[in-house]
Amino acid sequence: MTVILAASGLVAVAALFWSAYGTYYVMRRDPGDERMRRIQGFIREGAWAFMLAEAKVMAVTLLIIGAVLWALFYWEVAVAFWVGSGLSMAAGFIGMNAATLANARTTHAVRRSLREALTVAFTGGSVMGIAVAGLATAGLVFVIWLFRREFDPSVVQIVTKTVFGIPGADVNFIKAALIVSAYSAGASLVALFDRVGGGIYTKAADMAADLVGKVELKIPEDDPRNPATIADNVGDNVGDVGGLGADLLESFVSSIIAVIVIALYVYVGRLNQDIQTLLAKYGITDLAIFEQNYWWFVLLPILYVAGGIVASLLAVMYIRYSRRTKDMQRILMNGFTLAAVLTAGFAALATALSPFNFIPFISLLLGIVSGVLIGFISEYYTSARYRPTRELARMYQSGPAVGVTEGMAVGMSSSLLVCLVLGIAIVVAYQLGGLLAVAYAGMGMLTFVGIMVSMDSYGPIGDNAAGIATMAKLDPHVREQCDVLDSIGNTTAAIGKGFAIGSAAFAAIGLIAAYLWSAAGRATEVHLPNVPLVSPEVGGLVMAGLITGAMLTYVFSAMLIRAVSRTADVMVQEIRRQFRENPKLMSGEGTPDYRRCITITAHNGVRRMIVPSLLAVVLPLFIGLVFGRYTLAGFLVGALLSAIMLAIFCGNAGGAMDNAKKYVEEGHFGGKGSEAHAAGVVADTVGDPLKDTVGPSLDILIKLMSVISLLFASLFPVQPWFLR
Amino acid sequence: MTVILAASGLVAVAALFWSAYGTYYVMRRDPGDERMRRIQGFIREGAWAFMLAEAKVMAVTLLIIGAVLWALFYWEVAVAFWVGSGLSMAAGFIGMNAATLANARTTHAVRRSLREALTVAFTGGSVMGIAVAGLATAGLVFVIWLFRREFDPSVVQIVTKTVFGIPGADVNFIKAALIVSAYSAGASLVALFDRVGGGIYTKAADMAADLVGKVELKIPEDDPRNPATIADNVGDNVGDVGGLGADLLESFVSSIIAVIVIALYVYVGRLNQDIQTLLAKYGITDLAIFEQNYWWFVLLPILYVAGGIVASLLAVMYIRYSRRTKDMQRILMNGFTLAAVLTAGFAALATALSPFNFIPFISLLLGIVSGVLIGFISEYYTSARYRPTRELARMYQSGPAVGVTEGMAVGMSSSLLVCLVLGIAIVVAYQLGGLLAVAYAGMGMLTFVGIMVSMDSYGPIGDNAAGIATMAKLDPHVREQCDVLDSIGNTTAAIGKGFAIGSAAFAAIGLIAAYLWSAAGRATEVHLPNVPLVSPEVGGLVMAGLITGAMLTYVFSAMLIRAVSRTADVMVQEIRRQFRENPKLMSGEGTPDYRRCITITAHNGVRRMIVPSLLAVVLPLFIGLVFGRYTLAGFLVGALLSAIMLAIFCGNAGGAMDNAKKYVEEGHFGGKGSEAHAAGVVADTVGDPLKDTVGPSLDILIKLMSVISLLFASLFPVQPWFLR
Repeated sequence: MTVILAASGLVAVAALFWSAYGTYYVMRRDPGDERMRRIQGFIREGAWAFMLAEAKVMAVTLLIIGAVLWALFYWEVAVAFWVGSGLSMAAGFIGMNAATLANARTTHAVRRSLREALTVAFTGGSVMGIAVAGLATAGLVFVIWLFRREFDPSVVQIVTKTVFGIPGADVNFIKAALIVSAYSAGASLVALFDRVGGGIYTKAADMAADLVGKVELKIPEDDPRNPATIADNVGDNVGDVGGLGADLLESFVSSIIAVIVIALYVYVGRLNQDIQTLLAKYGITDLAIFEQNYWWFVLLPILYVAGGIVASLLAVMYIRYSRRTKDMQRILMNGFTLAAVLTAGFAALATALSPFNFIPFISLLLGIVSGVLIGFISEYYTSARYRPTRELARMYQSGPAVGVTEGMAVGMSSSLLVCLVLGIAIVVAYQLGGLLAVAYAGMGMLTFVGIMVSMDSYGPIGDNAAGIATMAKLDPHVREQCDVLDSIGNTTAAIGKGFAIGSAAFAAIGLIAAYLWSAAGRATEVHLPNVPLVSPEVGGLVMAGLITGAMLTYVFSAMLIRAVSRTADVMVQEIRRQFRENPKLMSGEGTPDYRRCITITAHNGVRRMIVPSLLAVVLPLFIGLVFGRYTLAGFLVGALLSAIMLAIFCGNAGGAMDNAKKYVEEGHFGGKGSEAHAAGVVADTVGDPLKDTVGPSLDILIKLMSVISLLFASLFPVQPWFLR
Repeated sequence: MTVILAASGLVAVAALFWSAYGTYYVMRRDPGDERMRRIQGFIREGAWAFMLAEAKVMAVTLLIIGAVLWALFYWEVAVAFWVGSGLSMAAGFIGMNAATLANARTTHAVRRSLREALTVAFTGGSVMGIAVAGLATAGLVFVIWLFRREFDPSVVQIVTKTVFGIPGADVNFIKAALIVSAYSAGASLVALFDRVGGGIYTKAADMAADLVGKVELKIPEDDPRNPATIADNVGDNVGDVGGLGADLLESFVSSIIAVIVIALYVYVGRLNQDIQTLLAKYGITDLAIFEQNYWWFVLLPILYVAGGIVASLLAVMYIRYSRRTKDMQRILMNGFTLAAVLTAGFAALATALSPFNFIPFISLLLGIVSGVLIGFISEYYTSARYRPTRELARMYQSGPAVGVTEGMAVGMSSSLLVCLVLGIAIVVAYQLGGLLAVAYAGMGMLTFVGIMVSMDSYGPIGDNAAGIATMAKLDPHVREQCDVLDSIGNTTAAIGKGFAIGSAAFAAIGLIAAYLWSAAGRATEVHLPNVPLVSPEVGGLVMAGLITGAMLTYVFSAMLIRAVSRTADVMVQEIRRQFRENPKLMSGEGTPDYRRCITITAHNGVRRMIVPSLLAVVLPLFIGLVFGRYTLAGFLVGALLSAIMLAIFCGNAGGAMDNAKKYVEEGHFGGKGSEAHAAGVVADTVGDPLKDTVGPSLDILIKLMSVISLLFASLFPVQPWFLR
């Protein structure tokens, strides 16, 4: 145990050192001329101010929830919750900080060479990428080490009805599982806040800037005359970078936690016949050997991710220093493949050292393969290199209504292959090694999260660099080069999104299963309880739960969409006011009040993120307490199904609408200024909040609700008061 | 038994006589001048041609499926299937015929008095309304009487493994249940074809007429210069009338069948302890009494609907002859209330005569109440009299993108209350009397289908009348009066839509439960099997099934949306061609080639309806055969959840977008020609296929898949080949 934890901890610390070095490296670069510096200063200031305002709201919420956990359970649970949430918050800040440093420096570097600019931008992105993996692993190692007594095999056991005196609390209550779940819940809650808040901010600013700028005044994107320009760029940093960091840290953590919690339950239930059949699949036929290797069983996932960190670090080095080819798309793709192969290699090594056969490893690979497949499917539906998006661009010629309708149809159709891959992967994983294998597959998709986040967050840096180039009135060539930078690695980013959806589905299934397990209420039979749709015992409660759960995700989505459009609406009024009251603005003589736009968006973003985010905590608690644990089981499954579908739909419809518009802008079907382009702008604006606010938030929502249910399962009655 | 069947049959036949008289009454009215007659002739011709073309495709499909049923099961099953499908088809034709006769006559009547026009239009609508109820009931009585031997209590029993020699066919196989299920399946399949085909036709014609007419050429709606005008009006008759008739016949039939099938299973399982507990809830404690009253138990739902027919007929009479008030909105509402109260009265009487307590009656009332509630909720979200739609109209001022986004948000939010009502109703019904009560509640919503369909199909007649007024260049006052006619009864139509969604959810739950029951494979224990999400027995198959089922509804929706936009696209090309090649058209000197537009739409509508409709038959079979009955169970539940949510979303988003546009047209936020109006036109065009093609088809899809699964359950292995 000590060896595994120490080795993983060391790797995690090394990763954090690299992030620190990366930040330092970026800082040392030249941020360009006075004007660029000033713009960068505005962006940094705005981003910090928003994320600090967000953090304040979160801090209050986290303190309260932690205190509740402390009062209800143990202080260890509260501490784990705070550690998880603190790290998730840190990931967002570290990434945002590096990205806001790297943007102007990337613009400046472009003036010398594209290769150098790639290095600056990619280093900026990798600061967060590596930090996400490092923080998550370091935190987990820390929590397990700190509370190692609770993870001791002689202590890990089911505590029945002894936690506190509420009757009916007959759950399979494992303290160690509670601790890691709380760690995951903390990370998820912060991630949801960050994604929702950042998502509202970035899309509202984007929408408002476009509505007044492109549509009403016909001035180009990122024009310095537009007061919302800076807010738009701030949005990229708090939403696409800060939000992404917290999001992927959460995904990473929850996918590992799902494995650990299930492993703990399997260990506790080792005397059960079904569990022994399961263990035999992993090559364990002798219980004594299993008990001796308890630590391996619980900590194997941590070893896997430590390998993933090393692989990601090596891939980052390769991308930074490779000079073998000038095709940068190729370099990124190679780096990605390198990370995947190395991760698999390390995982194979760890598995060989472990007392198990290769089932965990194969499940991991299954996850990687299905993640890549889902990524390519998303890419197929949303990239202008393939038929669906080109066809959509063609339909733009029939006007905005047909464009939006057709874009929705693309998003809906894309679910076909994605869901088939998910379905097949679930069945295969389950056949290989039960729920544990499903959880391993979910983890597989994220093992090399370091390199994935690096690539995802490098895009917004390029985007920001392009914005600064325009705002600082640099040579148009600079902007073009920055745009090239932004478009490189779109494919890898698309694959990253596929991984996010896939791993969310798998991790949520694992967490829901863990909840069901813990709610089964039979201490000896650690076995998934049957949750009948309708039956004399549970009435129609499960069915009602399914419907309500599915409904929740729609209502949640509606709240986010509204938050974006209402915030954008307030901003549109403000921009119009500035142009009206300051006639010099349009001629370029006056300076717009950037700060006011930033403040308005920030204020609205923070205000409107609170209710939807808290829903994810309050609703499962409410339903569990009032309607009992079976209703909650139905609720979670309904929400999961509905969230997967909406997330796929929103992500791919938005992506296709965006890229079809870009395809038109490249000169097809009339190019810029044509009717097709006008339709594309409308469709893109509709798709934007779907793909960047709703979709990613749904992925987090479902995991957060599942892990909250798992945490509080002991409070929920088997039957509600009105059925007793 | 004879008495119940004879009485119900008589009522049904009386209803059919009324329909015949109604058609005769409408025919005797004056269809107006030469021009009106010609336009009406075009519409009639187009509608007949399309529905006949549809019928041809259906006939082939129905013959094949019937032959398969014959080969696999019994000839009685095939005959029941054909009877059900024939009646559903007849309902569509009868309604379309009456509506295309009534439209011009309504226009003409308006010139004399609004009251007279209401009588003509409403009589036209009631022909189909009463026919739907009459045909469904007559058919059911006929089938049960024809195959009464199979419904004999000494014959009704489980046939295990004896149907044909496929191994693993150990289902709870009741021949009588098969026969009524086949009747329902036939009606559902035709309804799906009619709804999909008619929905594609009507929305494609509408979209194309608007895209070229309103948007490009800026000519008003229904302008005779627009070659698509007639096709648009044909669409109202084949989609909103013909499709609606088949749809509601299907809903009506499947909600009754769900009760009868569950009742049959309860009877068969009467020796089981759980079932006896259930029967006690219905006041039956002595099995001997239960066995003596077998026929009551099975036929009580038929008595209920016979009462509903009488109530509907009386309400139709009231609406036609009432002269007490001039407020026609009030008259319609009174008629509706009268039908509801009378239905409840007759049902109370039937229950009092039966050997049961009032639980079936209370469940029926529960259904009526929740149906009305869902209707009012839909009305709240989609009518311009309330805040959501007015707010949406206000947001139209920010342009089409915000308009569409906000409209989607309205649709998503509306699911909150609808799903709460559904969830509560399910729990309450189940507590009252198990699944049987849930099925009764579903039936409750549709007992007085006669009056509901009358009101729903009277709207399109008014709409058509308005179209004819414009096309025949009558005094603008006539058109205004027709529009008034159209808008009267909007509330009742909205309530009708609420009933459709609610009853679809309940009937589908009943049918899925019946499938699970029949697939349980335990002859003596007639008890709902547990369907665990993941377990050693079923692997991850149920989970995979849930995901695939949810996915199917999205893919199905995408296919319909695409079918509409592609068909509209073809038509747009044709309209542009006509204007280009015939320059006299725009000046009004030339006559457009209406017929060509009608043919093109019809051809595309029929062609594109085939694949989505057959999916609903083929997919459950495929999944059941290849992946086994547990996967199929998950698939059906996933599809149900997803279909309910999408249907609510599509219906209410589309409704709100449409009415917000009309609200702007009334002069708010700038009125016609303003930016808000332009945004509203875009949003309405996006919402149209959602609310009129996708939403209603989803309601049918899920019931059809459930009943097909129920029919073929005996063919599906418990475990798929790869798990054996």
